[in-house]
Amino acid sequence: MAADTGAGAADRFHRWLAAQKQHTDMLVRQVALEDLAGWNAEPGTGNLVHETGRFYSVEGLDVHLPGAPVERWQQPIINQPEVGILGILVKEFDGVLHCLMQAKIEPGNHNGLQLSPTVQATRSNYTRVHKGAEVPYLHYFRDTSRHQVLADVRQSEQGAWFFRKRNRNIVVQVTEDVEVREGFTWLTLHQLHELLMLDDLVNMDARSVLACLPFTGPGLPQVLGTPADDFTAALVRSCDERADVPENLAGVLHWITDVRTRRDVVAERVPLRALAGWRRDDGRIEHESGRFFRVTGVDVAATGREVRAWAQPMIEPCGEGVIAFLARRIDGVLHLLVHAATEPGYADVVELAPTVQCTPAALDALPAGARPPHLDAVLNAAPERIRFDAVHSEEGGRFYHARNRYLIVETEEDLGAGAPDHRWLTVAQLVALMRHSHYVNVQARCLLACLHSLTARRSGPVQPSVALS
Amino acid sequence: MAADTGAGAADRFHRWLAAQKQHTDMLVRQVALEDLAGWNAEPGTGNLVHETGRFYSVEGLDVHLPGAPVERWQQPIINQPEVGILGILVKEFDGVLHCLMQAKIEPGNHNGLQLSPTVQATRSNYTRVHKGAEVPYLHYFRDTSRHQVLADVRQSEQGAWFFRKRNRNIVVQVTEDVEVREGFTWLTLHQLHELLMLDDLVNMDARSVLACLPFTGPGLPQVLGTPADDFTAALVRSCDERADVPENLAGVLHWITDVRTRRDVVAERVPLRALAGWRRDDGRIEHESGRFFRVTGVDVAATGREVRAWAQPMIEPCGEGVIAFLARRIDGVLHLLVHAATEPGYADVVELAPTVQCTPAALDALPAGARPPHLDAVLNAAPERIRFDAVHSEEGGRFYHARNRYLIVETEEDLGAGAPDHRWLTVAQLVALMRHSHYVNVQARCLLACLHSLTARRSGPVQPSVALS
Repeated sequence: MAADTGAGAADRFHRWLAAQKQHTDMLVRQVALEDLAGWNAEPGTGNLVHETGRFYSVEGLDVHLPGAPVERWQQPIINQPEVGILGILVKEFDGVLHCLMQAKIEPGNHNGLQLSPTVQATRSNYTRVHKGAEVPYLHYFRDTSRHQVLADVRQSEQGAWFFRKRNRNIVVQVTEDVEVREGFTWLTLHQLHELLMLDDLVNMDARSVLACLPFTGPGLPQVLGTPADDFTAALVRSCDERADVPENLAGVLHWITDVRTRRDVVAERVPLRALAGWRRDDGRIEHESGRFFRVTGVDVAATGREVRAWAQPMIEPCGEGVIAFLARRIDGVLHLLVHAATEPGYADVVELAPTVQCTPAALDALPAGARPPHLDAVLNAAPERIRFDAVHSEEGGRFYHARNRYLIVETEEDLGAGAPDHRWLTVAQLVALMRHSHYVNVQARCLLACLHSLTARRSGPVQPSVALS
Repeated sequence: MAADTGAGAADRFHRWLAAQKQHTDMLVRQVALEDLAGWNAEPGTGNLVHETGRFYSVEGLDVHLPGAPVERWQQPIINQPEVGILGILVKEFDGVLHCLMQAKIEPGNHNGLQLSPTVQATRSNYTRVHKGAEVPYLHYFRDTSRHQVLADVRQSEQGAWFFRKRNRNIVVQVTEDVEVREGFTWLTLHQLHELLMLDDLVNMDARSVLACLPFTGPGLPQVLGTPADDFTAALVRSCDERADVPENLAGVLHWITDVRTRRDVVAERVPLRALAGWRRDDGRIEHESGRFFRVTGVDVAATGREVRAWAQPMIEPCGEGVIAFLARRIDGVLHLLVHAATEPGYADVVELAPTVQCTPAALDALPAGARPPHLDAVLNAAPERIRFDAVHSEEGGRFYHARNRYLIVETEEDLGAGAPDHRWLTVAQLVALMRHSHYVNVQARCLLACLHSLTARRSGPVQPSVALS
């Protein structure tokens, strides 16, 4: 679909998406891990590895976090050392920045098609290990010499499920003509912001890359419209790096360095076979409590535009998660309560996470001290305090039906005061950190993309008129 | 010694330093590794470990760098996972920023005393594992709540000799009275800049922390004087983050991300016993070629203010190294040719290094392709092109007589043009990167401190009048 900014653009987008669903389909069937074609238990370790040695493996991790509510545990973890590319191609049409998005179906998506970046490819993908078709548009990200690179940073993904995984989040702006291939469409940031308010539509990789876009500054058009209300005005001021905020970035960097230096993490890869607290049963690996997550297998057959069949192990979380920022206006500037969180798969001790990030159903299997301090403030918030509320899916290529409720909840209380692991930051401070690796975790990045979508609540012609099922 | 900025300050400093040498001394004797008190070869691996399990160990590393001039090798490496503190306390006297420096003797220093940061302590030090005296001034860096933190970042050290070692480089500004203890003295940045021009006086840790100081900006007085000449004027402009430079930081970050994504590094810790290419002989471990470095043992006895005796293994490089930036004026702004270098001990594939960083005597044991591309341009530079030239010592707590010639050489040629691993950057760009970990290596940081010292070449009362032996 070519760039479309006129009246009725939202209707046309949803008709286009519905048409995509007719072109492509995917059959996904859960199967026992021992029956996964192409995957074997490695002799000795029992790690799940692909027969080519590529893609990824499921291994064990032994974790030691002295002083944490749970100091020591073992768990399965995905080891995927390759750095993949998550790239969005952007271009101005009539002075408005558009993003080339793809309707992509993935085995873990509970609803099939979602919007993904222009390119979403593992290194095995783009070096064509599995001999699939060439990745469309890849060359724009592999040779950027003729284009402008707006963002390019390797970012981590779920540290609870991935061992030090990073993907390259890259945004390339072109001025030349771009052929729009089947399954792709140009969308404005405004349209994407509106689509982020719908459940399960903008996928995790797209949310992550969108968050890495610098929202203001040279090289990028001003995307913020006239604020609709005081909250949005405070948000717009929070995005302005020149805002007179109580502390500068040096204070934030000092805090992060301090937490990273004081906190000890030992996470050692161990054999998947015989992890303490985990059992292999019914062809899957699950925790003895039945909580947290399962390692499960799927057989996949994709039909339609591209016909392929494969099998793979996936992580299936037990229950829907909650990912929430508490937001507070300080002197008219919106601040977010970030949490310096440790997850065993992080490369550098701590990353900045949302105020709350947990799976409530898992809490009964954990000591009381593991309950996130502000979970009740989030779950019991009065409706008028809830500024954003949508359910989004996580990486459908590795996670099976992993969904989280994304929330922005406004508060007037300084709930984080005095807590050494929480701190109120502006959006501009988080955007400055997101130019570098290992600072802002994937949940916080995704939620920042959602927060930015609130700037779409301005006067404008484009309103979504079709609810997605 | 209290703050001293008047005429004759340099003389008084050197008299103070000479007096320090009378208060303290250290006997250092090389001994066989098997005779090191408190250190043992770990059963099975042969790794050199301390009987407490603390401090550091000497292990083996198996390195694979596909596409590099040497693709595969093994070597000994120091494993020191603890993050130590390198802290400088600063305070204004009469509007001039002063740094509290320590005259510190270390076993690897060929000349005994050098100037070190206010605090230079491993975590074993400051948690008092070896039951020594409490570390003076440590509390200023452990609890910064009453002070201003000008810089706080964990920086890597030699990736050829350390496995992922990082120290916390921190600068804390106080306004309260500070007792000056024996062995400490206040020096202005101007004095430190002048002392950097002398050989073997400002130690590696001090150079590294000084480089992490933001040289301009809020919270820090302007330290740059009136430029003495066009070169210095171009240097001053290069330090100005608002300078109109050909590319912004986004381009630099894109380049770093690209190099880091394309280059593969596999560095796995292996047993020290039986490293390919290394032999254990005469109580030390050395390469079969006799080049690169040796692992050697020392017995140390410190006398004077603090009486202590201990033994430790050290790395002893075979020959003096060359560390050089080529510098070029582009539109009146000084640019430095940085090299995206891979060393096996880096945590993140690549760090930015000086244009040239090598030990010339080792080159005859390496293939021709390993010769640094601009080494001849540096070594054969006409004298009037050499803007800085001094020999400095590396970390005397781990390296035995490790000395490098630090050079800044001006060129008019665009020598790096088209080379994918080299790029011309301004000082401001490097300063922006040094706020974060893993971007600028220790050699480049030290050389940047030396480069800044050239701003001391302005009219002023303080000139060093005593050459140090």
